[in-house]
Amino acid sequence: MAMSHTQHISQQFDKELEDLRAHVLAMGGLVEEQLSKVLEAITHPNLELAEQVVEADAVVNALEVKIDAECTSILMRRQPAAGDLRLVLAISKVITDLERIGDETKKVARVIINMINTGSPRSYYLGVLSLGHHVKRSLRAALDAFARMNSRAALAASREDPEVDRETEAVMRQLITYMMEDPRAIRGVLDAVVAVRAFERIGDHAANICEKAIYLVEGKDVRHVALDQIAQELNLGSAEEA
Amino acid sequence: MAMSHTQHISQQFDKELEDLRAHVLAMGGLVEEQLSKVLEAITHPNLELAEQVVEADAVVNALEVKIDAECTSILMRRQPAAGDLRLVLAISKVITDLERIGDETKKVARVIINMINTGSPRSYYLGVLSLGHHVKRSLRAALDAFARMNSRAALAASREDPEVDRETEAVMRQLITYMMEDPRAIRGVLDAVVAVRAFERIGDHAANICEKAIYLVEGKDVRHVALDQIAQELNLGSAEEA
Repeated sequence: MAMSHTQHISQQFDKELEDLRAHVLAMGGLVEEQLSKVLEAITHPNLELAEQVVEADAVVNALEVKIDAECTSILMRRQPAAGDLRLVLAISKVITDLERIGDETKKVARVIINMINTGSPRSYYLGVLSLGHHVKRSLRAALDAFARMNSRAALAASREDPEVDRETEAVMRQLITYMMEDPRAIRGVLDAVVAVRAFERIGDHAANICEKAIYLVEGKDVRHVALDQIAQELNLGSAEEA
Repeated sequence: MAMSHTQHISQQFDKELEDLRAHVLAMGGLVEEQLSKVLEAITHPNLELAEQVVEADAVVNALEVKIDAECTSILMRRQPAAGDLRLVLAISKVITDLERIGDETKKVARVIINMINTGSPRSYYLGVLSLGHHVKRSLRAALDAFARMNSRAALAASREDPEVDRETEAVMRQLITYMMEDPRAIRGVLDAVVAVRAFERIGDHAANICEKAIYLVEGKDVRHVALDQIAQELNLGSAEEA
């Protein structure tokens, strides 16, 4: 069946947007995989796996540049209207967060390589590991809310960030105790501190992704607004219901 | 003198872009001022000044949201062509970096408040202070290159980042020595470590701003490309000549 020129253009555009969405979700998937690998490399100390994570960060970086160029190209050729424009802009910001999550994951991988090479006790990393798993769940929830364009789920997921911050402080207190008990442990424990801070930041970036999902669905910029106020204003009810 | 409707529209658009540029530079100025204040509050320990810095971060955050909305509005109404589109997109990313610099500066201010309240020795902060001044110069150079849209100056400024990283490691080694010498100092020194990491990140964000300036002028995404390669590809010659 023949179709009009306009229909054709519009179908092409829909496909471009669909591809763009698919690419950002693929990038998210890769970043999650990197995070899973680094957690695995802590659980069962594995030098090779940690080195793989360091190397694969270049792929994450390349994806950011590629997807950002796609966004620019779409904006330039298609001049999308409100909803589509928001999607493109949200994606162009989400990929920045994903790229930074990749950087932080690489930082943890380097710490683990160091832990293995120096024979630093794995006991320093028990709290770190639990924090890492917590953050991984937050990232999963954030990407899932973004993929499903579900602002209620995004709000629920963003409520995890204060929890992550609390857990971060608890792990930090424990690490400080190790250092005070044995000053020779200071260098080794400081590596673990670097990993804690990296996971804390991954949590922050996951929360940023939630904000972008809310912006995308509700058309409202909710950065720097308290969570309860967001729920109230957007009439999203209790976040637990998501 | 009468002017055509098109001329009128185009002049209005030029004014909007000019305003947008002015707003991002004003935001940059505010962020620099915050950084100067926090350095001053370390040099002459000043609780009130440090508290001012913490409070004023809300203004930086509000500016980001406002300028981002301006960018979206321009994209939606004006559908800018290549060069103007690049400007708007570059600005929408630079403000994210500026907002994060504000966050890191607030973090340092909180550390200084703690330093003053707990009577932690100021000697821990000498290296931190020198690093902070270094980073402040980097930020100045980055914003200046962005304002003048000078890619050569941006490249020269981005060469500061590896220097900042080297200084960071030197300061860290010094702080570790303090901790090993006196385990009772650990808590206090760890606060200084937080400040070191915050300044290091401000340096990273300054480098990001340089990359955006290069993208803006040269239309090339230079993230994750080695500095020498950028200089060669863009024919910018030696960065020292800027």
